[in-house]
Amino acid sequence: METVKLASDLSFSRIILGLMRLNQWGFDETELIRFTEQCLEQGITTFDLADIYGDYTCESIFGQVLKQKPILRDRMQIVTKCGICMRSDKYPDRRVKYYDTSKEHILASVDNSLRHLQTDYIDLLLIHRPDPMIDPEEVAEAFAHLKKVGKVRHFGVSNFTPSQFRMISAYVEMPLVTNQIEMSVLHVEPFFDGTMDQCLEKRIPPMAWSPLAGGRIFSAADEQSLRTREALVQVGKELGDFSLDQLMLAWLLRHPGRIMPIIGTGRWDRILSAVQSLAIPMTRMQWFQILEASRGRQVD
Amino acid sequence: METVKLASDLSFSRIILGLMRLNQWGFDETELIRFTEQCLEQGITTFDLADIYGDYTCESIFGQVLKQKPILRDRMQIVTKCGICMRSDKYPDRRVKYYDTSKEHILASVDNSLRHLQTDYIDLLLIHRPDPMIDPEEVAEAFAHLKKVGKVRHFGVSNFTPSQFRMISAYVEMPLVTNQIEMSVLHVEPFFDGTMDQCLEKRIPPMAWSPLAGGRIFSAADEQSLRTREALVQVGKELGDFSLDQLMLAWLLRHPGRIMPIIGTGRWDRILSAVQSLAIPMTRMQWFQILEASRGRQVD
Amino acid sequence: METVKLASDLSFSRIILGLMRLNQWGFDETELIRFTEQCLEQGITTFDLADIYGDYTCESIFGQVLKQKPILRDRMQIVTKCGICMRSDKYPDRRVKYYDTSKEHILASVDNSLRHLQTDYIDLLLIHRPDPMIDPEEVAEAFAHLKKVGKVRHFGVSNFTPSQFRMISAYVEMPLVTNQIEMSVLHVEPFFDGTMDQCLEKRIPPMAWSPLAGGRIFSAADEQSLRTREALVQVGKELGDFSLDQLMLAWLLRHPGRIMPIIGTGRWDRILSAVQSLAIPMTRMQWFQILEASRGRQVD
Repeated sequence: METVKLASDLSFSRIILGLMRLNQWGFDETELIRFTEQCLEQGITTFDLADIYGDYTCESIFGQVLKQKPILRDRMQIVTKCGICMRSDKYPDRRVKYYDTSKEHILASVDNSLRHLQTDYIDLLLIHRPDPMIDPEEVAEAFAHLKKVGKVRHFGVSNFTPSQFRMISAYVEMPLVTNQIEMSVLHVEPFFDGTMDQCLEKRIPPMAWSPLAGGRIFSAADEQSLRTREALVQVGKELGDFSLDQLMLAWLLRHPGRIMPIIGTGRWDRILSAVQSLAIPMTRMQWFQILEASRGRQVD
Repeated sequence: METVKLASDLSFSRIILGLMRLNQWGFDETELIRFTEQCLEQGITTFDLADIYGDYTCESIFGQVLKQKPILRDRMQIVTKCGICMRSDKYPDRRVKYYDTSKEHILASVDNSLRHLQTDYIDLLLIHRPDPMIDPEEVAEAFAHLKKVGKVRHFGVSNFTPSQFRMISAYVEMPLVTNQIEMSVLHVEPFFDGTMDQCLEKRIPPMAWSPLAGGRIFSAADEQSLRTREALVQVGKELGDFSLDQLMLAWLLRHPGRIMPIIGTGRWDRILSAVQSLAIPMTRMQWFQILEASRGRQVD
Repeated sequence: METVKLASDLSFSRIILGLMRLNQWGFDETELIRFTEQCLEQGITTFDLADIYGDYTCESIFGQVLKQKPILRDRMQIVTKCGICMRSDKYPDRRVKYYDTSKEHILASVDNSLRHLQTDYIDLLLIHRPDPMIDPEEVAEAFAHLKKVGKVRHFGVSNFTPSQFRMISAYVEMPLVTNQIEMSVLHVEPFFDGTMDQCLEKRIPPMAWSPLAGGRIFSAADEQSLRTREALVQVGKELGDFSLDQLMLAWLLRHPGRIMPIIGTGRWDRILSAVQSLAIPMTRMQWFQILEASRGRQVD
């Protein structure tokens, strides 16, 4: 599979496996190991997690793979995140959801992630959400320490606006290698609000979460979904025998910005389907036809 | 006439002739040549075009002038644009309007423009609209090539937001010399949304399209037009015997940002009228009185 | 009291006294002198003014203090502003409110301020509002001149958006040391619209005007005020015996951005109350609880 270079010593698979719902996939340990190995064989080598996924359980579940098969660690890149303090039975004192990007929290969160994941290092650590109470000096100190002791190889952010990205970049010594954002045929704002502009400007490839828009296109109960689905169907007829989700991925992959979609599925047929979307030769006009349908108006 | 320096070797007339509707002016070849010569004598030396104007015909119509009077070429600056793929009988395969800023398209579009315009070079080439599917590396390559072979002297953009401008500037080797945007007493957003801020920051003078707001002020059927017209009339009484369109131009010309209005008319009396607007000594308070009327509220 | 360093030779008290309504406080000269001395003894050494405050009278009123007690001048920092042309009986020719950031106006305004304030220098001069008709070269020239002749020690802006700040910074030689903006538990936009991001990025501490939201929380007639008041009350119960306004200040002071609230009161008990808010140890979760109440929704 095509890879995307994020730094001189960091490349991701173009399609990334998202493990946000790993706790719901119903895998036993053997099945999960087998699924992981199949992904690696298919060239999907990057795995996306966060401390909070599955009510703080997904990292631990995935950690079983590495415990049983530590040899797989070098063949994969692990992304995880920190900074959100979810309400949870595990944290009964939390009255509200909040963010914590203090040095203390980041360091503790990474230590937890390493223990849960049963690994010595994280390939990429992301600040999960922009924190309105951020102290960028603390973030910079935390990142510098984590890099120095080898616990984290690279750093990035998620859901950051351009001004937040610019701000944190003014403190962190090492370049931030990605911004993980929501992008799909039903969520095209990043192409117009400056987020994609900044990714191109800084030459960083974004990771796209919810690239299939959570399945909304399949039910298509709203106008935008209906219009977009119709455009996808028409484009699909021209391109050959492709499914809606393949076309949705192809739309992201066709963009020159080296967008890396995160596929959050434990079904092998869907993984294979996603991989095939890399080969769809969508034309520029088809790309804009889908965009026009999503926005409900043609470009100016 | 006053000129505006965009680069060490590029100056535009403060008022620019817009040829978007040249195909509708009803000039025969002799009339067009005479009109062009009159403009040049009046000091209007900059002519604004685009590949798509007049359903892809205006460049060719204007090209007749240069074919018959090639001696005029050195006395004028030609601006043209590329990047929009219009729906047109000439392109029956286009199902939707879309943008194409690929290297291949830019190079082909410039070759077409040169052939239509019957000239060897374009003084200023603009990307017509910000392309959400842009590959800035391709744009940079195309620009570098066009500069090197002498087909285009300078480059700029049109209708770009600040973040899009910043992004493309991170790739193109030569400075972008302008951003052509919509600005008028009825379209004051660029003074508040960061667009004019960026022009000042980068020290680039903007070209203003639709500086007379398409004549809306004359019919004045909406509240904003009514209010603004009333303010213009009151200011006009103080300033002397000036027409509404002269006051509208004076409002743009009074701004320190060296705004260059594009006048899209083939009527000689309107050209003369526009030229006279350069001499209107509008005060700061009058400028804000018109702004307040347009926005429907005083400044904070 | 804690101080905030804005430049190598400029430090402000963390809490600033705002004199916008000094003309309404009902102080006679002796009382004003005594109040000023009390503030200084309490560590509140920074005084915020503007040419226009009190219909152009507050600077003169405060000037009486310095006339009678010139020895106090070295113990305080005076902030004043220019650029707004208010409608006023003093300026009967003004038909509309407008801005003037011309060199001529800035220089004349500072001369007026110095005369009114009965001092030789202003510690910090702010452009009061972003002027859509600004000529940044003139502003830069005015600032350079004022610095050179010693009339103004430092420069900044007020109510500027990030793009306006970036633009003016591209012209002014000396760094702008602050952006004075509206911030409070009821006005949290600056934490999300890029304004605070830019302050952090440029490492400039913002001054916060209306940090108590004009008393709206006390009447609490709107939904936002009701929700926020309730959150403040709950947080207050946990923190101890603090008033609503103390908690509102603590919320700003808790942010890592070194926000300097401007307290606009002539009542000594309120001054003391404000000073005590510096010691409130608000937790991160409490900070977000108040933010959530203000916005009416939890963070993403």
